[in-house]
Amino acid sequence: MREQALLRHIYDRSAPLAGFPGIVQGPGDDCAVVNIQSPVLLKVDQVIEGRHFVEGTLLDLVARKAMARPLSDIAAMAGRPAYALAAAILPMGFPQARADELFDALSRWALHWGCPLVGGDIAVAHGVLALSISIVGHVHPTRGPVYRHGAVAGDEVFVTGALGGSLDAVTGMGKHLSFEPRLAEGAWLAETLGARLHAMMDISDGLGIDAGRLAERSGVGIQIDAGSVPLSHGVASVDHAVRDGEDYELLFTVSPGALPARGECPGGCAFTRVGKVLAGHGASLKKGDALEDITGAGFEHRG
Amino acid sequence: MREQALLRHIYDRSAPLAGFPGIVQGPGDDCAVVNIQSPVLLKVDQVIEGRHFVEGTLLDLVARKAMARPLSDIAAMAGRPAYALAAAILPMGFPQARADELFDALSRWALHWGCPLVGGDIAVAHGVLALSISIVGHVHPTRGPVYRHGAVAGDEVFVTGALGGSLDAVTGMGKHLSFEPRLAEGAWLAETLGARLHAMMDISDGLGIDAGRLAERSGVGIQIDAGSVPLSHGVASVDHAVRDGEDYELLFTVSPGALPARGECPGGCAFTRVGKVLAGHGASLKKGDALEDITGAGFEHRG
Repeated sequence: MREQALLRHIYDRSAPLAGFPGIVQGPGDDCAVVNIQSPVLLKVDQVIEGRHFVEGTLLDLVARKAMARPLSDIAAMAGRPAYALAAAILPMGFPQARADELFDALSRWALHWGCPLVGGDIAVAHGVLALSISIVGHVHPTRGPVYRHGAVAGDEVFVTGALGGSLDAVTGMGKHLSFEPRLAEGAWLAETLGARLHAMMDISDGLGIDAGRLAERSGVGIQIDAGSVPLSHGVASVDHAVRDGEDYELLFTVSPGALPARGECPGGCAFTRVGKVLAGHGASLKKGDALEDITGAGFEHRG
Repeated sequence: MREQALLRHIYDRSAPLAGFPGIVQGPGDDCAVVNIQSPVLLKVDQVIEGRHFVEGTLLDLVARKAMARPLSDIAAMAGRPAYALAAAILPMGFPQARADELFDALSRWALHWGCPLVGGDIAVAHGVLALSISIVGHVHPTRGPVYRHGAVAGDEVFVTGALGGSLDAVTGMGKHLSFEPRLAEGAWLAETLGARLHAMMDISDGLGIDAGRLAERSGVGIQIDAGSVPLSHGVASVDHAVRDGEDYELLFTVSPGALPARGECPGGCAFTRVGKVLAGHGASLKKGDALEDITGAGFEHRG
């Protein structure tokens, strides 16, 4: 693998970007130069072999997840992606053809979600395959950015899609490699609800831990009704939905009555009311008369 | 190392950013939200243990180099840095105190160069320490971005500072860990020379290979005069200056007579005329009557 050869491949394939609106200078110079309207959203996220995907995962799915993870955060602000930067660490001996395939997949998924790759860095090093993707995005034109800290007591709590079982530990497959960043849904909620959409985030580590984060940032408590949580196909217990993580669905709070308890966003993604915002703190799961503290329930990263 | 604990450390230390002009939302939400004027510069670069620094390098110097590398590219466009994002891969077992130290150093160097860290991601994984830094920057307000492709035959070729010997292979120390990104110099050249500053880039892989790149992008040839190349202290031969790499000095071309053959930028960094732009292609080194092709001379990354 010669980095120069791969860079040339990248520059050659990037030629079509010259006509992309907003791109003054794409890959090939010291920096990219782009047009964008202020304020902007900034996000970086990464995927690493052995941590976010197992060895042997199709490069197309690795590239897809690398792009989709930070895009899920753009969605959680009700934003729209604009440009992407990619940094890759390739293991020693990674074949040139595979490197080309990886770049092509990154480039294709970036365009698929409307944020062309305008720059990047590639390094060959001892270690595993790792990708870090930075996204620059637009805020919603009328609602503006939707933060985690806007929830108030009395709000109703919703999620998009269904939860649990995203990471099949046995095969390493599952929704975590194929989830759809909820960009259209986040934007639609902001458009439709405006100021009645109070707070939003994406569920990456588990409903428990993430609801706990939203509650903490907002200075409120969140109570989830166990019977209301939509479970992914094959998930038998709400405990999985609360703890499994890697769902990349939206968790959001709205003014009472702003949405029906169940419905669909345009495009067919479901939304479901799963609980309410209370004065207090932390996240709890209501099972009949029992109340379980789930503030820290989810995937806690340790090393 | 618990990522949650480190994230809390980061959020706590990021509180002062709330008063930083332009930052609407700093670390702690799904994305950062910042104000910036279009067009903007975008750059990502990375440093990886064993590749860009040796094991045991002071974390402060690792953090410094991680920030300085992409900032050198911002300088090479005559830009001004505005915001930074950091993604870190920490080896398994990396102690919490060292992780805190690394983040504090990144944060301090980011502020030092005027581009506060507004977001990041941390993952613990099998492998070596790796940092990827993305920078969002302003273009020069009057000259605009200075590209690699603006050189024309008849231009004079200059470099800032002195070249060679940046990477001491024995100790791993040297200028590559302590270089100053030429932000002030790049901006001063753009301010002073305006449209007479035709093309610019930073020298990261070696004067030969980088002059070759600038020549290729501009569709011209560059001839370097061996006797004119300023050598770093302790560098005995121009061949090192041409090939060693990791100099992070500026290479730029200007209209004939726009600058004296030697001088100083405000702040004391030297600039030196080292050659000329000719019709043709590639980079060559003129030693007396001999002409040596140095188009590919420098550090070619292979894996």
